[in-house]
Amino acid sequence: MKILDGKYLSNVIKEEIKESVDVRLSSGMKKPHLAAILVGDDGASLTYIGSKVKSCKQVGFESTLIRLENTISENNLLTEIKKLNENKNIDGYIVQLPLPKHINEEKILLMVDPHKDVDGFHPTNFGRMVLELPSFIPATPFGIMEILKRYDIQTSGKNCLVIGRSNIVGRPISVLMSQKSSYGNATVTVAHSRTENIKELSLKADIIISALGIPEFIKENMVKQGVVVIDVGITRVVDKTNSKGYVIKGDVDFKNVSKKASYITPVPGGVGPMTIAMLLKNTLLACEIKD
Amino acid sequence: MKILDGKYLSNVIKEEIKESVDVRLSSGMKKPHLAAILVGDDGASLTYIGSKVKSCKQVGFESTLIRLENTISENNLLTEIKKLNENKNIDGYIVQLPLPKHINEEKILLMVDPHKDVDGFHPTNFGRMVLELPSFIPATPFGIMEILKRYDIQTSGKNCLVIGRSNIVGRPISVLMSQKSSYGNATVTVAHSRTENIKELSLKADIIISALGIPEFIKENMVKQGVVVIDVGITRVVDKTNSKGYVIKGDVDFKNVSKKASYITPVPGGVGPMTIAMLLKNTLLACEIKD
Repeated sequence: MKILDGKYLSNVIKEEIKESVDVRLSSGMKKPHLAAILVGDDGASLTYIGSKVKSCKQVGFESTLIRLENTISENNLLTEIKKLNENKNIDGYIVQLPLPKHINEEKILLMVDPHKDVDGFHPTNFGRMVLELPSFIPATPFGIMEILKRYDIQTSGKNCLVIGRSNIVGRPISVLMSQKSSYGNATVTVAHSRTENIKELSLKADIIISALGIPEFIKENMVKQGVVVIDVGITRVVDKTNSKGYVIKGDVDFKNVSKKASYITPVPGGVGPMTIAMLLKNTLLACEIKD
Repeated sequence: MKILDGKYLSNVIKEEIKESVDVRLSSGMKKPHLAAILVGDDGASLTYIGSKVKSCKQVGFESTLIRLENTISENNLLTEIKKLNENKNIDGYIVQLPLPKHINEEKILLMVDPHKDVDGFHPTNFGRMVLELPSFIPATPFGIMEILKRYDIQTSGKNCLVIGRSNIVGRPISVLMSQKSSYGNATVTVAHSRTENIKELSLKADIIISALGIPEFIKENMVKQGVVVIDVGITRVVDKTNSKGYVIKGDVDFKNVSKKASYITPVPGGVGPMTIAMLLKNTLLACEIKD
């Protein structure tokens, strides 16, 4: 069994990005610039945004955090988005989700200029990705593909089970894994809340990518010997013995499933850190395209 | 075994569209107007375009066929596309594929105004479809969904095998079948040229949608009793006993597979006629959205 070490790998990728930035700077080119809009003061969102800003510093990016009141109107938020679209100094930006209930998330995301949509959530980027045109690939599936590539995991003709059909993870990774590409070409099945024979499917799978959000849902008796496991689940589970009062759990019973797996991502330290690294990668790409 | 009669169903849908057009006309509104660009004089393309034009007449649409020389330059074709984008009288249009080799198909399709893209091939429409936003759904998958709906075939939680991963059929139908919707919610597997265990997968499938293009690939011993079969394959096979010199064959050995199927589409007369009906439906929608 080999650990797919996303923490290590994300540092390798950040180092590569930093080198690209250094080359840019020594050629007199501008720093890539990532902006983020955060509405309100949700704790988890603050944590995510905080680590994104910190990562920008690590790789030599400029970053701008725009914090807005929870009470901001939809129209005023749209105005902020328009400003970012027009600001030539900003290469890419993200709108941290979730947004307050009085704001239509769809309307906001549709307003993001696809050329600056480094989260890859705009329909134009999504469609381009599915149609195999150059696009910003959403950071989490992009990170998963990068793990498979850097660990040279063979996927062609393999049975891949994707658990979850969200627009952020399940749907895009299911498409990427099944496309004609070096680390795609898998025979992909998408399982979701209506799937009735999940155990039968997971037992047949050579590769399992789980983005379900149910802690330790995947048990040892649900996987075959030698399976490759990518665990995208991140759930906070109350744990009073821990100083934070919670622990982070993945979708996979790591302790037992890892005994049968050939490769497995830990949680934390697997897909999570890769997501931020790939967001930076997309921002670098956005900047380079403009050159 | 029940035949999924696409020919009959397409006529029902055309009749409904005609009624909508009649209501429009009696309210003093314009006729929907579909245009088609045909480059060159490929026989199959001429046949397809011919039946599209004929169908427009049947439902009371205005239609315009723009025939261009095989030698037209890419730039001149782009100019024609721009004219169609700007022509307010035209609600939707299609560019018949394939285009001559000296023309970049991708470049042409990207120039089509997504609001007039009734083929649903533009990335913006594709992305909107995958993200479950209102969009033009490509006609063939749209037709398949309509067959399932009109015959009230239960799909939720069923194992659905899609054979083929093309952008025109396999990819979009695999997404639609797995989305949270009345005739979606299936557990979908996408098989393709790299898939190694096709028979194992097809034997497990409650629903098989085949868009492979290999005549009679799916045999009786590859399907289970009660399977629902949607055959998207259309291949011309030489047959000298036939006056045309060929017969049209689907991907499925209809004669034998139909013995085990609960529902099955014939070829011809299944998915084919539905494709044209749904193109008309998209054109009507494009016209209505503009009102």
